[in-house]
Amino acid sequence: MDPTTPQQACFEAGIKFGSLYHQFAGTPISPASADSLAAAMEEAIENQPFCEDVTVSVRTEALEAAIAEAGADYTELTGRLIEVEMVIEYEGVTVETSMAMDDGYPLMQVDAVQE
Amino acid sequence: MDPTTPQQACFEAGIKFGSLYHQFAGTPISPASADSLAAAMEEAIENQPFCEDVTVSVRTEALEAAIAEAGADYTELTGRLIEVEMVIEYEGVTVETSMAMDDGYPLMQVDAVQE
Amino acid sequence: MDPTTPQQACFEAGIKFGSLYHQFAGTPISPASADSLAAAMEEAIENQPFCEDVTVSVRTEALEAAIAEAGADYTELTGRLIEVEMVIEYEGVTVETSMAMDDGYPLMQVDAVQE
Amino acid sequence: MDPTTPQQACFEAGIKFGSLYHQFAGTPISPASADSLAAAMEEAIENQPFCEDVTVSVRTEALEAAIAEAGADYTELTGRLIEVEMVIEYEGVTVETSMAMDDGYPLMQVDAVQE
Repeated sequence: MDPTTPQQACFEAGIKFGSLYHQFAGTPISPASADSLAAAMEEAIENQPFCEDVTVSVRTEALEAAIAEAGADYTELTGRLIEVEMVIEYEGVTVETSMAMDDGYPLMQVDAVQE
Repeated sequence: MDPTTPQQACFEAGIKFGSLYHQFAGTPISPASADSLAAAMEEAIENQPFCEDVTVSVRTEALEAAIAEAGADYTELTGRLIEVEMVIEYEGVTVETSMAMDDGYPLMQVDAVQE
Repeated sequence: MDPTTPQQACFEAGIKFGSLYHQFAGTPISPASADSLAAAMEEAIENQPFCEDVTVSVRTEALEAAIAEAGADYTELTGRLIEVEMVIEYEGVTVETSMAMDDGYPLMQVDAVQE
Repeated sequence: MDPTTPQQACFEAGIKFGSLYHQFAGTPISPASADSLAAAMEEAIENQPFCEDVTVSVRTEALEAAIAEAGADYTELTGRLIEVEMVIEYEGVTVETSMAMDDGYPLMQVDAVQE
């Protein structure tokens, strides 16, 4: 069957999450550079079609722990170091999505779909 | 409202497309290396949860044209150089998706949703 | 033969250029988001060892032309859209490097090596 | 001072290492997909100017340990999971470089420079 409009909206939401994650995973990050990276991630992905709002929060304690574990001054960005909220608007459908730690693993999920 | 299972399946399908695109965009590619890159893209993304099948086809003429235009021996991967088909299986729902050129621009879309 | 210290310094400089380019190539960019991306690129790469200073300048006219050509609101980052200057300090050797357009193509080069 | 030819050769070698690392870091990888990814990395980077030979070896035990630790079927590529050897030829200078684990951390280095 052809997809419904809400299904297409969820597909668009997923595209933005995969883009955000795999574009920026691996970026060198430290407490000092965390804010500029989070801001760039938000504004970069908000350029994409149907992407109404992106909020990236660096998990400071997890970042500091990763750097301490590496015995270095910085580490590389992974999903464990950030929380993300994203709102997609697609042909009258609003999709709210997020990425947060769940049982020790970063989980991307659809929180709500409103027609 | 909470998402339905088919909506979640479409979200998962979108994640895989965004991942595939932004992980590999920018990779140096030539006619000689196109096959190994396409194979790696397929097998890498098939590792992700719910991803049943990925097919990446390099658009050879577009690749050769991009290289000729650059006056070089290779170019960098963009969405204009590949076609992608992907099948997602999520809790009994099958989602078929594809990326192909549409009006001169690479378009990712949901082709069918089967419960 | 074993590398000299200045040769190792130049190797380190090259690593930073390759990192900067391939980490961020493909990022969605528009005039509105250009500044935050440039700032994040600078601060991210400055985290890397021996990297004293990074300056990323977006070539605004080239960005606007790429967006106009695509008939879209944004485009994806390539080397044609930025100029980069970078200073590496490695065991008493300073290496100045840059990326700028040269004959229609973005060229990364070593500008000076000072012991 | 202007760079010498061997210094420029080392700069080119560094570019290839940074490219290889940051293009592919974050790629989903499992024992089953490791070979295709290694082959694609080799052929992709060999496209770049002056890059004579690239060999990527996946560290199978480290990969299996990372997957077991994550409690998943795959993980994401980091420098800890691969060893790399690369030969650069630049205007009569041959540079041999490698990335391997050193004191628990992946280290990129110049092994030899031959004029």
